[in-house]
Amino acid sequence: MTVTSRRSVLRTAALLPLALAVPAFAQAQAKKHRLLIAVSDNDPGKWNMVMNNVKNAQEDVGGVDKIDIEVVAYGPGINMLRSETPVAGHINDLLKTGVKVVGCENTMKNLKLEKSQMMSTIGYVPAAVTEIMRKQEEGWAYVRP
Amino acid sequence: MTVTSRRSVLRTAALLPLALAVPAFAQAQAKKHRLLIAVSDNDPGKWNMVMNNVKNAQEDVGGVDKIDIEVVAYGPGINMLRSETPVAGHINDLLKTGVKVVGCENTMKNLKLEKSQMMSTIGYVPAAVTEIMRKQEEGWAYVRP
Amino acid sequence: MTVTSRRSVLRTAALLPLALAVPAFAQAQAKKHRLLIAVSDNDPGKWNMVMNNVKNAQEDVGGVDKIDIEVVAYGPGINMLRSETPVAGHINDLLKTGVKVVGCENTMKNLKLEKSQMMSTIGYVPAAVTEIMRKQEEGWAYVRP
Repeated sequence: MTVTSRRSVLRTAALLPLALAVPAFAQAQAKKHRLLIAVSDNDPGKWNMVMNNVKNAQEDVGGVDKIDIEVVAYGPGINMLRSETPVAGHINDLLKTGVKVVGCENTMKNLKLEKSQMMSTIGYVPAAVTEIMRKQEEGWAYVRP
Repeated sequence: MTVTSRRSVLRTAALLPLALAVPAFAQAQAKKHRLLIAVSDNDPGKWNMVMNNVKNAQEDVGGVDKIDIEVVAYGPGINMLRSETPVAGHINDLLKTGVKVVGCENTMKNLKLEKSQMMSTIGYVPAAVTEIMRKQEEGWAYVRP
Repeated sequence: MTVTSRRSVLRTAALLPLALAVPAFAQAQAKKHRLLIAVSDNDPGKWNMVMNNVKNAQEDVGGVDKIDIEVVAYGPGINMLRSETPVAGHINDLLKTGVKVVGCENTMKNLKLEKSQMMSTIGYVPAAVTEIMRKQEEGWAYVRP
């Protein structure tokens, strides 16, 4: 093996980690934004703000296909998702754009709330606190208005 | 050096970054969840919610050994940790499961609160705001109920 | 090629990913702290707490040059930045230390607030919710007092 051929092997090897990194970087660039909004206050004014936040986020990033949004309601905020919520129309509008809206089953157990008392269009998570944690572990941004 | 042996060197070199990455990946998989819950409201209803959040998180991830939890109280939330707090029993129960509960010394200085006026079982951090920042820098999830 | 020279090539190749990683690591060590504080409550008590949080963070990390801080106000929190805000003096003091203080233009549109009604020294972002998201995407810590 000549010095040249040896250098060539090393040069190629040196480039390999970079070569492997490129697809990951390109993937990151193409990645959708991911936003978790958590609602824990029993405050219709705040619920309206959240609805505006979601629409603003969708517009600001350039469209609903550029961002995954999940709204999770728990604690006193669970009332945002009851059948009689004043923001039902807003929530259903957001659901049509692909936003996920979920309630915390632990909160519901504590408050003896049945799914029959909730909006029929929403989803559920077992525990909001771990939903918020896991989403952050996966790289989602967390906003608590 | 034949073409074959050279390819073999390259192939081995190409695998090295992956080989180095495997232990880190395995480590990440085995890593405990890490959750910081910050309390800044003077609201016993919210304090109870936090206590529930901690228990729910421990159950939802499969046990207290699967998650590190720290609860930091600051601003008006510092009252959660005073001797006469209504959630003292709850807090002592959580401490037994390995949860860290800490108060903000900056808040205490501002409010002229002495450690003798606080629960004797808790810990302290110099500044809650940097505790929350540093934990996020280390990869902890942040929940502000 | 002897076994020894081949091992030497492999050993060198094995070290390359680490060698490449060193500058990134050193850079990370030298990196400033980055902290986004979001204010969404119409509560002068909370605004004072935020002002204290900023000063405490600057002191706790060892000086204003060790940390980039941005304070974003939105929703009912936008009032913190109106000309008649009780924390104007505090805000101007923070601005002198390099802290960025910005208001949410979406909130202002909703509330029909003009820039002429706001402190003249502050800045603006189009949407607070995406500001909070993007800063987290860039690795900033998020604190919601």
